[in-house]
Amino acid sequence: MAIEKALDFMKNPLKANIKNPLKKQKKVIGVSPDALVFRGVQRRETVDIQLIDFDSDKLEEVSIVDIKKFKDLINTDTVSWINVNGLHDDTIISEIGETFGIESYVLSDIMNTNLRPKVQEHDNYLFVSLKMLMHDEDLNEIDVENISLIIMDHVLISFQEKEGDVFDPVRQRIRDQRKRIRTFGTDYLAFALLDIVIDNYIYSTSALGEKIDELEVDLLEDPDEKLLGRINLYKKEINYLRRYIKPGQEMILLLSKMETPLLKKRTAPFYKELVDNVQQASELTDSYREILSDQLNVYHTTMSTKLNDVMKFLTIFSVIFIPLTFIAGIYGTNFEYVPELDYRYSYFIMWGIMVVISIFMIFYFKKKKWL
Amino acid sequence: MAIEKALDFMKNPLKANIKNPLKKQKKVIGVSPDALVFRGVQRRETVDIQLIDFDSDKLEEVSIVDIKKFKDLINTDTVSWINVNGLHDDTIISEIGETFGIESYVLSDIMNTNLRPKVQEHDNYLFVSLKMLMHDEDLNEIDVENISLIIMDHVLISFQEKEGDVFDPVRQRIRDQRKRIRTFGTDYLAFALLDIVIDNYIYSTSALGEKIDELEVDLLEDPDEKLLGRINLYKKEINYLRRYIKPGQEMILLLSKMETPLLKKRTAPFYKELVDNVQQASELTDSYREILSDQLNVYHTTMSTKLNDVMKFLTIFSVIFIPLTFIAGIYGTNFEYVPELDYRYSYFIMWGIMVVISIFMIFYFKKKKWL
Amino acid sequence: MAIEKALDFMKNPLKANIKNPLKKQKKVIGVSPDALVFRGVQRRETVDIQLIDFDSDKLEEVSIVDIKKFKDLINTDTVSWINVNGLHDDTIISEIGETFGIESYVLSDIMNTNLRPKVQEHDNYLFVSLKMLMHDEDLNEIDVENISLIIMDHVLISFQEKEGDVFDPVRQRIRDQRKRIRTFGTDYLAFALLDIVIDNYIYSTSALGEKIDELEVDLLEDPDEKLLGRINLYKKEINYLRRYIKPGQEMILLLSKMETPLLKKRTAPFYKELVDNVQQASELTDSYREILSDQLNVYHTTMSTKLNDVMKFLTIFSVIFIPLTFIAGIYGTNFEYVPELDYRYSYFIMWGIMVVISIFMIFYFKKKKWL
Amino acid sequence: MAIEKALDFMKNPLKANIKNPLKKQKKVIGVSPDALVFRGVQRRETVDIQLIDFDSDKLEEVSIVDIKKFKDLINTDTVSWINVNGLHDDTIISEIGETFGIESYVLSDIMNTNLRPKVQEHDNYLFVSLKMLMHDEDLNEIDVENISLIIMDHVLISFQEKEGDVFDPVRQRIRDQRKRIRTFGTDYLAFALLDIVIDNYIYSTSALGEKIDELEVDLLEDPDEKLLGRINLYKKEINYLRRYIKPGQEMILLLSKMETPLLKKRTAPFYKELVDNVQQASELTDSYREILSDQLNVYHTTMSTKLNDVMKFLTIFSVIFIPLTFIAGIYGTNFEYVPELDYRYSYFIMWGIMVVISIFMIFYFKKKKWL
Amino acid sequence: MAIEKALDFMKNPLKANIKNPLKKQKKVIGVSPDALVFRGVQRRETVDIQLIDFDSDKLEEVSIVDIKKFKDLINTDTVSWINVNGLHDDTIISEIGETFGIESYVLSDIMNTNLRPKVQEHDNYLFVSLKMLMHDEDLNEIDVENISLIIMDHVLISFQEKEGDVFDPVRQRIRDQRKRIRTFGTDYLAFALLDIVIDNYIYSTSALGEKIDELEVDLLEDPDEKLLGRINLYKKEINYLRRYIKPGQEMILLLSKMETPLLKKRTAPFYKELVDNVQQASELTDSYREILSDQLNVYHTTMSTKLNDVMKFLTIFSVIFIPLTFIAGIYGTNFEYVPELDYRYSYFIMWGIMVVISIFMIFYFKKKKWL
Repeated sequence: MAIEKALDFMKNPLKANIKNPLKKQKKVIGVSPDALVFRGVQRRETVDIQLIDFDSDKLEEVSIVDIKKFKDLINTDTVSWINVNGLHDDTIISEIGETFGIESYVLSDIMNTNLRPKVQEHDNYLFVSLKMLMHDEDLNEIDVENISLIIMDHVLISFQEKEGDVFDPVRQRIRDQRKRIRTFGTDYLAFALLDIVIDNYIYSTSALGEKIDELEVDLLEDPDEKLLGRINLYKKEINYLRRYIKPGQEMILLLSKMETPLLKKRTAPFYKELVDNVQQASELTDSYREILSDQLNVYHTTMSTKLNDVMKFLTIFSVIFIPLTFIAGIYGTNFEYVPELDYRYSYFIMWGIMVVISIFMIFYFKKKKWL
Repeated sequence: MAIEKALDFMKNPLKANIKNPLKKQKKVIGVSPDALVFRGVQRRETVDIQLIDFDSDKLEEVSIVDIKKFKDLINTDTVSWINVNGLHDDTIISEIGETFGIESYVLSDIMNTNLRPKVQEHDNYLFVSLKMLMHDEDLNEIDVENISLIIMDHVLISFQEKEGDVFDPVRQRIRDQRKRIRTFGTDYLAFALLDIVIDNYIYSTSALGEKIDELEVDLLEDPDEKLLGRINLYKKEINYLRRYIKPGQEMILLLSKMETPLLKKRTAPFYKELVDNVQQASELTDSYREILSDQLNVYHTTMSTKLNDVMKFLTIFSVIFIPLTFIAGIYGTNFEYVPELDYRYSYFIMWGIMVVISIFMIFYFKKKKWL
Repeated sequence: MAIEKALDFMKNPLKANIKNPLKKQKKVIGVSPDALVFRGVQRRETVDIQLIDFDSDKLEEVSIVDIKKFKDLINTDTVSWINVNGLHDDTIISEIGETFGIESYVLSDIMNTNLRPKVQEHDNYLFVSLKMLMHDEDLNEIDVENISLIIMDHVLISFQEKEGDVFDPVRQRIRDQRKRIRTFGTDYLAFALLDIVIDNYIYSTSALGEKIDELEVDLLEDPDEKLLGRINLYKKEINYLRRYIKPGQEMILLLSKMETPLLKKRTAPFYKELVDNVQQASELTDSYREILSDQLNVYHTTMSTKLNDVMKFLTIFSVIFIPLTFIAGIYGTNFEYVPELDYRYSYFIMWGIMVVISIFMIFYFKKKKWL
Repeated sequence: MAIEKALDFMKNPLKANIKNPLKKQKKVIGVSPDALVFRGVQRRETVDIQLIDFDSDKLEEVSIVDIKKFKDLINTDTVSWINVNGLHDDTIISEIGETFGIESYVLSDIMNTNLRPKVQEHDNYLFVSLKMLMHDEDLNEIDVENISLIIMDHVLISFQEKEGDVFDPVRQRIRDQRKRIRTFGTDYLAFALLDIVIDNYIYSTSALGEKIDELEVDLLEDPDEKLLGRINLYKKEINYLRRYIKPGQEMILLLSKMETPLLKKRTAPFYKELVDNVQQASELTDSYREILSDQLNVYHTTMSTKLNDVMKFLTIFSVIFIPLTFIAGIYGTNFEYVPELDYRYSYFIMWGIMVVISIFMIFYFKKKKWL
Repeated sequence: MAIEKALDFMKNPLKANIKNPLKKQKKVIGVSPDALVFRGVQRRETVDIQLIDFDSDKLEEVSIVDIKKFKDLINTDTVSWINVNGLHDDTIISEIGETFGIESYVLSDIMNTNLRPKVQEHDNYLFVSLKMLMHDEDLNEIDVENISLIIMDHVLISFQEKEGDVFDPVRQRIRDQRKRIRTFGTDYLAFALLDIVIDNYIYSTSALGEKIDELEVDLLEDPDEKLLGRINLYKKEINYLRRYIKPGQEMILLLSKMETPLLKKRTAPFYKELVDNVQQASELTDSYREILSDQLNVYHTTMSTKLNDVMKFLTIFSVIFIPLTFIAGIYGTNFEYVPELDYRYSYFIMWGIMVVISIFMIFYFKKKKWL
């Protein structure tokens, strides 16, 4: 019976806690790498583009409608951050590509939300793509989203399908006039965005980690079959996180070692920090995996010890009755001459002998530590 | 009984789903590396050679009969793609070798369908050999095929035993006048062909992956012995795919790092893309392997929990009857003087006591959570 | 029953033995890397700063109150060791930063006690951060503490939250006029401090190791369920130590390979020594992990052998009575004509047969080595 | 009982299938590395030396008696292949060494058949040592033999203890006037010999692999205890092969990367081929190891499922009789007043109730899928 | 019962077979790296120093009493080998240090017998430290000893606590006028000493390996619980050896790659030989570890198969009696009208039916292969 409850719990573990719009896409075979095909799940109706243009003195925020006027809006002496929400419209993506001179196969990559995290150096820009993991505390689920960045000398373009308020802290820091973010260039801005992504890696892992820690307490206090479902669920979730964090780590490491004029020397320490952070995230998933695997062992051992104790108890219980029933059987025989049967107190003596045998056996099993 | 069904299912797992004409070849020991011996399974009667000759303006498709006229057909200012279907005829292979100046030990490698994926640089050409994995949706089987490419400055020769319509999308792209494939050289054409191979790696793995995901659902809903057969089967299949994909990944990585005038700088990003894709394929097989291994654990745990529950129930059932049978045995004894026997309502009292004992035991086991 | 005792023991293993003020901090997402926010658990009321200023001739120890007078106190021809206890006051940290020209993101790292061990080279200083593990013999617990060092040409600043008397041996060596520590520069002083940290790694691991060795003896003498709790506990603790020692090892290796004028050539052998020591610590944790895993195997095998022996004994006990009870049953039947029943000595013959059967069965089981 | 058969089968697994004269040698401690001591098992009476001297035009085969006349026999404008069968005679080995200027510690290595595969560059020759694995189809055993090669500019000397007809294909190719082997130098000849060794690695592994594949079929059709012995045996054999192939692979890789005038540029592609082949052999052993480990799992699972089914069946069988026996016991009591006893059809009603209970229980267990 | 014997055997496994005076030393925390403190177990009363001074012509052996006269004894045109037995006297060590210009922190390392194997290059000498493993055949135990070497241009100093006759073969070779050891310098002498250490690695491992091979035979012939103790013991011992051999291997590799005028080019091949030998030792421990792990599996499988066979037999035995006892119970009922009871031959018919049922069940179980 207990197993059923555990299974009920396990039935839809992934759906319940991880929202992954990246899956379920069949790769189209043999198309040109330039083909602008959206590969992913459309998560919004329209494409929404915002421009934040700033230097240390001034700050301008615009919502862009006509992409063709882009060029006019952008000054080469300020930093322009263009955030594109919505990747499913190939005409818009292609217009952005033309405006900023982005190769068509890079645009194709931007529109592919199943892309493996990567970093690519081009003549006048860096292309960075990685996964964002966002833990939604209300829904208690982790949302996976593909993020692409185009880092140019004065312009940074960020792409994502779903509008995330995830970059809001950076917007806020730009508005609040914090020094470095306003005076350093696009490379520092890119760092700030990537930093948020990595912070979310750590945060998502920690959120799962807390649940694993709670499970540990339950495991020690009252281990029952339901816990197995939870252990397996968390194991799946942590593997899931790992599958996105590990290639992200690889990518960040590559980026930090890249020698390109687009990443200025003064931002190098920040990118090193990024490497440290993503490594911390990655080590965190590793250690929670280990913890889960230990928990699984503790669970199995506890359960099997429990079962063994029950079976041993039941067996011993049976064993005690076996000689007693045998004795009763002996005096149930219908032999003509059974001397004990005729003695008046035989019945009571039989009871006495049975009690003595039982006590002796219990005592013996106790001594052997079987009970 | 249930095990038999599982075993029936497992009996010919590989035959059912993976068609591998590459196996079962005994290596001939000590022959010269130049010997032109076909090593593989002949899968077609004749050798069929097609030539596609094109530049940005013109396009010509010919089926070649007389190999000796090759040279005349090929212009040095166009790209010529020669596709050879059928490797079993050593005279044809050797004539091609003579025409294009291909070393005889390379020809020997081309005729060996059991070759480990490799890439070799020669004076005037690159030799590339790898495995194609094609998932046939109708038959639900994976077909393995060895593909060799000779990449020269103006000519690309592709070899395979079975005619595959697998390269058709590339032919179509050439015919449809897509720009890059017509204007870039043989290196881009080679990329396009390799891209299809890698796409098929991903696709074959995904096709298997979907079956694994379905199994997951079944595993949680109604785990029975049949599932074990499926888990073991998929495990074998995924290992099978891995055995071809991993060396392919190695080879693609080597190719992408090769410094040769035959791979022009402008195609470098495409080869990097290829590296990313094959790594994705490889990671996909890795994660499905992990998933399968977790599923196996879940299966074993579920099955053993089920069995334990059954055995515990049966044991408890027996244990409840043991004291009852003992009591009945007591009053089956033939002692002359058993006072209870003479009392008129003893029989009913005995029943009452038995009911009380049973209820108490059930209650006790429930409290101990053994039931 | 026994399992409960084991579980009691395991209930709060971590709390009992490892005091980790570093955990339970949620990372704030999206803040600037310069933000001076204390991330950790405040472990003292005030901030306490000591200065030891020395060269081979003179030695001065001062407790500093006004940080602004720092500069006056420090001579460029002596070595000045500033030890800061207490990281929670951002104004003090920031003032120190201004006085010595330390970048604000480094100060931010100093205030983050959850930082991954790291080493960073800056224009005029090295920044080193790692974890201290202190084994408190009285409380039998391991205390984790983050330590940061700023190594400048003539000044070394060490930061920690809790005042540790951990660096006292170094202070003592400075006071006792030992040669090298007084005549070599800040790099040797830093080595001396790091050496203490690494020594504590080895010592903490050894302290745990001794408990593991004791457990081994118990395991072989009297294995019971309580041991399982201890094995699991020590496994958790050793993993815990590993999680801090491994990144520390990485960091020390990086430091020893760093080419910077701040680490003079004459101290290089000492840093190599440090690398050897931390590697020894790391190998020690590895081998205790292996030992624990072997112990777990021995425990499981012992327990299961024990259980199997019990169950086999009980089963054999039952089996011996089965034919006896059957015989008694036979002669309890009420058939009209059972010839044996009428023979006067039948009852005794039955007993005789039963004894013979029992002896034969015991003998048979002994011969088969089942008993 | 079944286990005994399996154990019989396992008793001398290694002796039965792998003939290893290399083992059982105690290393002599502290002797000079120059000492010419034969370390191995003498496998022939005499030492037999053959010389094949050839260039593209002429070919001469001689059996050598007087080693001192070596120099006269050898022309510097031809290739001379000296094959030495028999390593146990130190005077002959030492004379060869003197004649060709081979260092005494190399001679010592040649006489040590337990040597780890190695390649060493010397002033005027290369020294190569590796293991030959020969699968004898008639005896169905694998024979291990140490092979040493001295590759000089015009002379190649091959050493082995037992005369093997293993190099016959090369001799045949030399006699048959195949071009490259006659016109290329000693480096190509060495390649041809090494190629045979590697081919035998693949062949020996495949021969074992076929037996493993057969076992797979048996495992699925009729799994019994005998299979366990075979799995363990093959596991041991595959580990055995691995232990020789892996260091061989290492050595071949080293050799192929060696920059020495003795290995001419034109033979480089052949040595690369060699690397590919040995890697294939090595991967083959890896994948058979995996297959065996999977088979072991399938075996254990199948066996335990079988056992569980048996035990469940037996338990259920017992459980069905328990209430029936209890009922019979009830009516065997001798109470004065048991109303049912007096009713004429009670006996038949009792039978009826028993049948109903049995059917109900069977039905219940079927429904629960326990039967 | 059997388990107790196994446990008796296991009780003091390490003490019985490995004598390790290196353990049980608490590291002193915070002392200067120059402090000359003996860390280890004193194994002899006095310090004993011998000098062997030789070149190709002459040979002088002296036992030294006054260390200060060292300088006079040593000629720069001969090779002087000073062997120091006894490390516990800091004044002697320090005097040696002063005489030969050895840094105090190196002396400190020499006096630390717990040191991790290392090699250090200094201005005028190399410092080498590693573990000696000596297998004592009489006591059947392995003795661990720390060995340090100081390799100078004309002087080689070897340090060890316990006098070992372990270097006697080298002394003998020096006395016997073998060429190379007398004419080559200290680097060759150091090689000869290290060679003995490595030979002992191989020998100790082989000695343990032979016991493991014997165990294999026992395991297949008569597996009982005692074997488990031996497997676990050998596993511990092999891990123990590994823990010393692996860092030794690392150290030898480092030494062989060191570019220093102290290691002349002519001895390079000997150091390469050393690398090969230590790798062979290391691979030997690896393969014995694998063998032990396989043996453990075979043991567990055999034991569990045995137990399962016993339990199955017992269960089947019980099951056969269950219906028989039931039938007897039926005819023990006291119903007024049980028609069978009155028929004269009923009793014999009952016996007949019982025999038939028993035979049928045995036949059925045989057919099902349960018996």
